[in-house]
Amino acid sequence: MKSKADIRMRGFLKRTPVKTLLSLIKEHSRLLSAEDILTVEASGRVLVEDIISPVNVPNFDRSAMDGYALDAESTFGSSAYNPLMFKIVGQVTPGETYDAEIHPGEALSIMTGGPLPKGTNAVLMAEHAELIGDQIQVLEAVSPEKHVSKIGEDIKKDEIILRQGRSLRPQDIAVLSSVGMKKVKVVRKPEVELFITGNELLKPGEQADGVKIVDSNSVMLAPLIKRDGGVLKAIHHLPDERELLRKHLRESSADLICVSGGTSVGIEDHGPTLVDELGELLVHGIPMRPAAPTGFGLIFGSVAGCMKKVFLLPGNPVSCLSAYDYFVGRSLRLMGGRSEDWPYRTKKVKLATKISSQIGRIEYVRLRIENERAFFIAAGGASILSSTTQADAFLLTDEESEGFAEGEEVLVWLYDA
Amino acid sequence: MKSKADIRMRGFLKRTPVKTLLSLIKEHSRLLSAEDILTVEASGRVLVEDIISPVNVPNFDRSAMDGYALDAESTFGSSAYNPLMFKIVGQVTPGETYDAEIHPGEALSIMTGGPLPKGTNAVLMAEHAELIGDQIQVLEAVSPEKHVSKIGEDIKKDEIILRQGRSLRPQDIAVLSSVGMKKVKVVRKPEVELFITGNELLKPGEQADGVKIVDSNSVMLAPLIKRDGGVLKAIHHLPDERELLRKHLRESSADLICVSGGTSVGIEDHGPTLVDELGELLVHGIPMRPAAPTGFGLIFGSVAGCMKKVFLLPGNPVSCLSAYDYFVGRSLRLMGGRSEDWPYRTKKVKLATKISSQIGRIEYVRLRIENERAFFIAAGGASILSSTTQADAFLLTDEESEGFAEGEEVLVWLYDA
Repeated sequence: MKSKADIRMRGFLKRTPVKTLLSLIKEHSRLLSAEDILTVEASGRVLVEDIISPVNVPNFDRSAMDGYALDAESTFGSSAYNPLMFKIVGQVTPGETYDAEIHPGEALSIMTGGPLPKGTNAVLMAEHAELIGDQIQVLEAVSPEKHVSKIGEDIKKDEIILRQGRSLRPQDIAVLSSVGMKKVKVVRKPEVELFITGNELLKPGEQADGVKIVDSNSVMLAPLIKRDGGVLKAIHHLPDERELLRKHLRESSADLICVSGGTSVGIEDHGPTLVDELGELLVHGIPMRPAAPTGFGLIFGSVAGCMKKVFLLPGNPVSCLSAYDYFVGRSLRLMGGRSEDWPYRTKKVKLATKISSQIGRIEYVRLRIENERAFFIAAGGASILSSTTQADAFLLTDEESEGFAEGEEVLVWLYDA
Repeated sequence: MKSKADIRMRGFLKRTPVKTLLSLIKEHSRLLSAEDILTVEASGRVLVEDIISPVNVPNFDRSAMDGYALDAESTFGSSAYNPLMFKIVGQVTPGETYDAEIHPGEALSIMTGGPLPKGTNAVLMAEHAELIGDQIQVLEAVSPEKHVSKIGEDIKKDEIILRQGRSLRPQDIAVLSSVGMKKVKVVRKPEVELFITGNELLKPGEQADGVKIVDSNSVMLAPLIKRDGGVLKAIHHLPDERELLRKHLRESSADLICVSGGTSVGIEDHGPTLVDELGELLVHGIPMRPAAPTGFGLIFGSVAGCMKKVFLLPGNPVSCLSAYDYFVGRSLRLMGGRSEDWPYRTKKVKLATKISSQIGRIEYVRLRIENERAFFIAAGGASILSSTTQADAFLLTDEESEGFAEGEEVLVWLYDA
């Protein structure tokens, strides 16, 4: 077909602006459907609907102190100088009920969290009572509702407790548990498959041998995919065989596929033409360094009308990292209902060295930070993965800028989030 | 025994300063032993030793471009105006070797990542060659090592690639994979057991009924323990029965135990006396609100000379959260070789409201942030868990301060890390 040949031959003469790629990613990274999961496993997941409490928490009046439950009015006038005497009629601890009614002049020993019995509306702290046999001297009058956690004090029935879109915190799922929600409806996690292509590659765990090198991209991408809320369904290591990659791309049931390697315009670079053949190659080649051969497209899924996203990531590890981080992670976060922003912390630092960048190109620059000053890591080729382990931070130059001057203050992203 | 009775009766008359508790935690939260794990699973884990590369990466000279491998010197003088002709003798792609030697006047078609054959020391980019039959016109002279990734360019054999104490990033484990390390020695994860005590408690997933309430603490603590690098081995829901808790405390093989509830001085509060009986209760009662009944101690483990840490966490969920976050999380991070600092992002904001605090006491204050201004959440009792879901951030007042004035700029911790 013509279009395929076109792609192979035109190389990167026409690069797609990064902004265009980002807006295409946004357009095609729609929120995924919902799923019900156990509340206890929902920390970090994203709510698909407002949560309305079906109950009051607490759903009874309870004591906020260790002390004595009694009728507040009947303590009025009592003081250390003129203590009134109350008869202790029993005791209640949390989880128990005391069924008889308490009358004026009577008190019930109560522990923090214990339910107030009928006839009482306040708790006298243990410190303000003097125990004498089965009686107490009330050393201080208490007002109604004193030291009482009222019904609904924490959460009221029918109140919205958490909003749609919320990324659930540990305390949020605790609240969901306390209102009795066993399950919760959250955004499904995007499923990802990795195709690591290259005849030269050995699997992680093997040792480099002769002209074979060990794949590092899958090792790096796996935790990043997890970080961005994705589920890595499978990692396939494939030789540079067109039909094999074609078969795998077609059969994948993932929401998003990353192909590492074979994304450029060389003879073994089957990714771009295959995506175009199986769907639509929207972008191939961007003005970013490294990561220039990055591609993005859609291929038909097994379900009619359902497209799978495909990212073509350069095989060189630094390119792969920057392309994943700038594009794929964003897509996953958007599909999962999260903020598209980077999960890295930022920091303002002064540049110890000048950073040059060509106008019209974005540079992914790795920096070492020492005493609040950022040093450019020169050994920064696309294949020098150690530049990202030596670096503390990175920045991206602006497409319209020529870089930064020495001494300029810049905002950088810290690798250690 | 006397000591037990002492603890039960003296209540919190003598509270331990928070600084003392923190230094006790530091003293007893020593780095755990090492374990070997698969490199591909080591992201986020902490290295116990420096890593020295056993190999060069790459371990052969390879092409950094698609083009032609040749002898640089033999291109000298060549230009678009006066191109020299080279004979293409074959082709090499990554993972292959080309065994014959290349002579001056010959060139080998080479793909990015392909190994340079004998007799070559440079790569001419495809763009700078004109293919004519089985020959190329060299349109530009190349200098030696041009577009060649030299052996060891990324990582040199015997070089230290990562240092002891490093919390491994995705790119770090990628580097470990590329030097052929299948396994890596990291700090073992601290093992944690939770004992959730209280006759009034139902398990998560159940629905509040009468005077029974649903446990929320275990739900909240589980993801926090994971965040801090711990492994939650088991959650036990126990009634307030002294002997049962005693048995569980004795039999636990965890590095660290959290007991939620029963930590105060009430009649059902068995935690403090049990810790004292089974080992040593180092702290019980701190000047912090909420979380005043927090306790910390050591009990004898099943292995001689091996102590288990026990944290007594108040049952009220806000107290439980703040005590976990301020004390337990720190202990876990220290045992796991991580920074003891909080994993929350910080932010400077102006206070929209005054915050009062009693001198000598630390207040855990929850704040809502709107337009860069922080509003105090008044409904802040120890039992009001919803105050932590409504809050965007929190701060801790200083023990020596009376709080903060309205309009004062304060540093807060954001719940959404």
